[in-house]
Amino acid sequence: MKTFFDCIPCFVHQSLDSVRMTTTDEAVHERLLREVLRTLAEMDMRQSPPAMAKRIHRIIREMTGQADPYHDAKERFNRLAMDIYPELAAQVERSANPLETAVRLAIAGNVIDMGVNHNLSDEHVHEGIDHALDAPFEADIAAFGEEISNAANILYLADNAGEIVFDQLLIKQLLAEKVTVAVKGSPIINDATMEDAETTGLTKLVKVIDNGSDAPGTILEDCSDDFRRRFDEADLVIAKGQGNYETLNEVGRDIFFILKAKCPVIARDIGCHVGSLVLRRSRSTIMKEGDSHAKR
Amino acid sequence: MKTFFDCIPCFVHQSLDSVRMTTTDEAVHERLLREVLRTLAEMDMRQSPPAMAKRIHRIIREMTGQADPYHDAKERFNRLAMDIYPELAAQVERSANPLETAVRLAIAGNVIDMGVNHNLSDEHVHEGIDHALDAPFEADIAAFGEEISNAANILYLADNAGEIVFDQLLIKQLLAEKVTVAVKGSPIINDATMEDAETTGLTKLVKVIDNGSDAPGTILEDCSDDFRRRFDEADLVIAKGQGNYETLNEVGRDIFFILKAKCPVIARDIGCHVGSLVLRRSRSTIMKEGDSHAKR
Repeated sequence: MKTFFDCIPCFVHQSLDSVRMTTTDEAVHERLLREVLRTLAEMDMRQSPPAMAKRIHRIIREMTGQADPYHDAKERFNRLAMDIYPELAAQVERSANPLETAVRLAIAGNVIDMGVNHNLSDEHVHEGIDHALDAPFEADIAAFGEEISNAANILYLADNAGEIVFDQLLIKQLLAEKVTVAVKGSPIINDATMEDAETTGLTKLVKVIDNGSDAPGTILEDCSDDFRRRFDEADLVIAKGQGNYETLNEVGRDIFFILKAKCPVIARDIGCHVGSLVLRRSRSTIMKEGDSHAKR
Repeated sequence: MKTFFDCIPCFVHQSLDSVRMTTTDEAVHERLLREVLRTLAEMDMRQSPPAMAKRIHRIIREMTGQADPYHDAKERFNRLAMDIYPELAAQVERSANPLETAVRLAIAGNVIDMGVNHNLSDEHVHEGIDHALDAPFEADIAAFGEEISNAANILYLADNAGEIVFDQLLIKQLLAEKVTVAVKGSPIINDATMEDAETTGLTKLVKVIDNGSDAPGTILEDCSDDFRRRFDEADLVIAKGQGNYETLNEVGRDIFFILKAKCPVIARDIGCHVGSLVLRRSRSTIMKEGDSHAKR
């Protein structure tokens, strides 16, 4: 997905939020703000929003010397999610449709997105869970379940810290032995990295790799060769969150996107309302449906 | 008031809203967006937000060749306000405290601010009226009334089209013969100009002048000599809206600001919550209270 004009004020806002996490020095805030505005003025709008965010957050890291401004926030949300995990797992277990409940809860975890909501509270997370369990959800869960059964190896592209705990509910439904989870190569906003996968016990459940990139999404040309090979070879790719949708929705392979539509730009692109729960097969696949194409 | 960093994403947003009113040509939207970002990157943050908005809207007018993009919107809100005026006037008349009710309704009219809310609906205006009549309001109306009685000539700085109809309720309480209303010198956002004063009958009620400026506030050095003389000579200045607060709150003379605090930056500066009704004597006066200074 390209960057829309309405993404630009959001980038400016996100930049301010981020630099304020690293320092209270207003001279640094101003320097960063001006540099971001200059960068945005010249940016290539055909790039996806995560490509732009990657550049902005590199500027912040360089200017402040802080490699991981969201480190404490990530720890906090990992801890919160781990605390409520047993209750959520019990909910999946007693559900009439455990796969659907697990998908709903994986979407609930997607509210932990500090790129969209910087002032995220525990309360927001709890509200997100209630909403995800109750909201209308038009996905074809049975078809998704069939694709999962048919796939021998599944690549699961994680999104954020904290959220990756919720993902474990869904990964267990997929059968963990078939799944490889990919986290980000290095810190970017509150996206999950290998450290978060270890902290939350994900590495004990499933094989975890990193994608070699510091973009808050999956920019294939920015990822490691190993990641790209796995991406090409997977029978099924599941991609969590807005950043992965923005970077992969036009890639020519079968992908299931699972996310909560949190901003008007994404909602318009997907064709849903802000706040909707989304399980969406990639557009390229839908367009090709009925063709006799092989998966790769 | 200086421009705060948090004003910057708002400027970008407002620029997009405005240019979209003039043309659906996305190439123009992009060109404007980039020019605004470049301008913001180099701006002097000691300037007030209206000084910056003035520059941005000049760029929009030059780029699109449209002198008054909000013309139709202004007509619409003038008409809406005129339609409900008789009912509001009756409400003031039967009020136990007509001056307070008139101030509350003048504040209600201040929701018609398309710089803050571009998608303003009739419903918002009606909600604004209900809120203004019911909300807590800590102003010292008696002291304000006394100042009005003591003043032989009052300069009333108008804010927006539509809103100037609500202002007539208050102007009648001030005694119209003592009052001169100043509107903007030429179109800027949906600020009221002489055309709006004529359309709404304000010119029949009271003397109306224009301030000679196209800033969405009152930047004294940008105003005509005639306006500045009247500003200096008035016994009392009443200034409506955020733009006038932002440009005059540090000017060393007695001013009563009347507005609804619609954004977090203004609310923080005033020391109130977003949404609060505000009748506030200028800070410079408050600081001087107890001194033996003459008014000028």
